[in-house]
Amino acid sequence: MISSQQALVLLQQKIARIHYPEKPEHLYEPIAYILALKGKKIRPILTLLACNLYKESVNEAFDMAMAWEIFHNFTLMHDDVMDQADVRRGQLSVHKKWDENTAILSGDSMLILAYQYVAKSSEIYLKKLLDLFSSTAAEICEGQEYDMQFEQRLDVTEEEYLSMIRLKTAVLIGASLKSGAIIGDADEKDQNLLYDFGINLGIAFQIQDDLLDVYGDSIVFGKKIGGDILCGKKTYLLVNALNTSDKEVKKELIHWLNVKDKNDEKITAVTSLYNRISIKEKAREKMESFYQKAIYSLNNVNVSAEKKTILFNLAEELMDRKS
Amino acid sequence: MISSQQALVLLQQKIARIHYPEKPEHLYEPIAYILALKGKKIRPILTLLACNLYKESVNEAFDMAMAWEIFHNFTLMHDDVMDQADVRRGQLSVHKKWDENTAILSGDSMLILAYQYVAKSSEIYLKKLLDLFSSTAAEICEGQEYDMQFEQRLDVTEEEYLSMIRLKTAVLIGASLKSGAIIGDADEKDQNLLYDFGINLGIAFQIQDDLLDVYGDSIVFGKKIGGDILCGKKTYLLVNALNTSDKEVKKELIHWLNVKDKNDEKITAVTSLYNRISIKEKAREKMESFYQKAIYSLNNVNVSAEKKTILFNLAEELMDRKS
Repeated sequence: MISSQQALVLLQQKIARIHYPEKPEHLYEPIAYILALKGKKIRPILTLLACNLYKESVNEAFDMAMAWEIFHNFTLMHDDVMDQADVRRGQLSVHKKWDENTAILSGDSMLILAYQYVAKSSEIYLKKLLDLFSSTAAEICEGQEYDMQFEQRLDVTEEEYLSMIRLKTAVLIGASLKSGAIIGDADEKDQNLLYDFGINLGIAFQIQDDLLDVYGDSIVFGKKIGGDILCGKKTYLLVNALNTSDKEVKKELIHWLNVKDKNDEKITAVTSLYNRISIKEKAREKMESFYQKAIYSLNNVNVSAEKKTILFNLAEELMDRKS
Repeated sequence: MISSQQALVLLQQKIARIHYPEKPEHLYEPIAYILALKGKKIRPILTLLACNLYKESVNEAFDMAMAWEIFHNFTLMHDDVMDQADVRRGQLSVHKKWDENTAILSGDSMLILAYQYVAKSSEIYLKKLLDLFSSTAAEICEGQEYDMQFEQRLDVTEEEYLSMIRLKTAVLIGASLKSGAIIGDADEKDQNLLYDFGINLGIAFQIQDDLLDVYGDSIVFGKKIGGDILCGKKTYLLVNALNTSDKEVKKELIHWLNVKDKNDEKITAVTSLYNRISIKEKAREKMESFYQKAIYSLNNVNVSAEKKTILFNLAEELMDRKS
């Protein structure tokens, strides 16, 4: 059986060995750049681990794993343009290091490259993997669209927020797992249980991300604390605060959301409002409930508990993570 | 046998009947918008006609034809952002009618949608079509990259220019034809001959486009004459003029290229420089030579002359076109 750590190392090697056309450099360099940035590579690891539940060798699953990783980084490259985010994984984002046109066009090439990896999969699974890949990719664009729309709104409901992160974040985790199960020849019931495991884990993961932005340790987290607060991002914390706080707190919160300078003061003020209405505890509770749903699905996967240990452990690590 | 006109009408119907998810509207409306703009739909028509050389019914080829049309419009949507082009087919381009983020994200959705159409093709052809689609799409991104790079250069050679339009324009025409041949169960030799027919026709088509920009009739052409001159686009005409004119003409040409106002004067001056060194005739000659190469390939396709008439006619129409 492959460990998460072994999977990560093998994936890093595969990424380092991607063969890009020599020219035009300017098109392919940004792809190599973003793929080389340090990342957890959760999605491709999950593909390999899911396959490994059913097959000793995960060799057949590497192309699909790579497809998810390349696709994920494609979304980061384009999202950073749309969100005007200058930093990615502690480094300059592509549109900052190069320019916006480069990020758009290299991103397009990456999406195509991702499909080329899907297409390398065995023909037995090709149609199924391709359909899963496309429907997932389409949903992720929908998620990004909602995320951008929410920036303009103060009345986003918790349901809308959860539906958005399901699309933007969770379906990719679910589909990464499901594709591994498909390549492992798992039956449909298990494929769907692993998908559900991923969906709920993905939602819990995103709420954890929202929490870390406010309550994380900036050094371990790898980015400045309060970034979401500064850009008014509709996180679980903010949506919940806007929906559940009394008039006075809400008024104060909206006041601070509109403050465009005084960054440190803004972060302190919003955090203290969050504290006043126990947002941290509420978010942790919500995260825990999705995590439990995830565990429930994984429990029902028709594979020995021993084989599933690695996925249980990985899920737990993701929930306990500090970055 | 299907005629070009019948193919166009059927494709228009298919496009009008694409089923988009109801939400988020803001993501899918721009796709419906750009696909509904009036266009010749040469690429999908060629897929159907190529298939029709070998099979009475072209039903099997519609999905692939749609994939090419959707893909082509995806490239237009993103190219218009990169090129800051405000008008497309006489209407506002997507990033102007909506905004840049919309054009980026809806474009991404379109590329995924195009792949979903490829995936609808019969499983017998799926792998082959998918590989052809991806390699073609990747080349087209390379073409756009070179096209943008050339904007900054005055020393583009004719060879570089031809290589760029091969990537940016011709491979899509070639691949549209080849995919039809694949679905028609043509042998590999015919597939490749039709591809070559498309490549050379595509290059001739682009040179014709470059000519129309300067020497076309603005009403029939549907856009303002001289647009390429104003934005300093490296067309066949400009590349040739820069490479073949004597010092004096070249100096005058570069002077005018740097003029950023006086639009009408600039167009008149550059056109008159073109006339002085007979660029129109040189471009026509070059176009004709690629057209002849195209015809040579089509002649060698192992199908009765009668069946090929429709492709010969279409090629001729494209060369004689005024828009």
